[in-house]
Amino acid sequence: MEPLDELRTKIDDIDNAIIAKLAERFKITNQVGEYKAANNLPAKDTDREAKQYQRITELALQHDLDPAFAEAFLAVVIERVIQNHEEIAQNS
Amino acid sequence: MEPLDELRTKIDDIDNAIIAKLAERFKITNQVGEYKAANNLPAKDTDREAKQYQRITELALQHDLDPAFAEAFLAVVIERVIQNHEEIAQNS
Repeated sequence: MEPLDELRTKIDDIDNAIIAKLAERFKITNQVGEYKAANNLPAKDTDREAKQYQRITELALQHDLDPAFAEAFLAVVIERVIQNHEEIAQNS
Repeated sequence: MEPLDELRTKIDDIDNAIIAKLAERFKITNQVGEYKAANNLPAKDTDREAKQYQRITELALQHDLDPAFAEAFLAVVIERVIQNHEEIAQNS
């Protein structure tokens, strides 16, 4: 196999794993959304978010990943989570 | 444990796994960057990207994840990968 193809196969395998994890993550955050809707809790929780950004920064540093990238990734995920929470609340 | 705390622990565990996978992914894409720089190949490869978007859409559908979200995620990752490739080429 060409060196580039070999590396790309590894990248594709990682993407398989990340997509599976992201799907699992949204299934759990949707359970959070159901819980919040049932208990009249707001979709957005600033304290929880602050802790998540703190955690992701530390995790990124541990793994030698740019913390700014990790934070940008988390922002995209949280934005979608809140949107899902709002939809769940509206439909409940 | 409160139901919300229990769900949040699961989410944090998933984030640990995703960050580890992202870090691993950039280590491999940096190897791709080194290979491209050594062989005078361009940082951006439109054919490869088209295949990656096709793959990620299929993966998302398999995992019941919104394909638009998966594509947005891949776009953020690829943007950073190309930036890294360009830096590697400039420094080689």
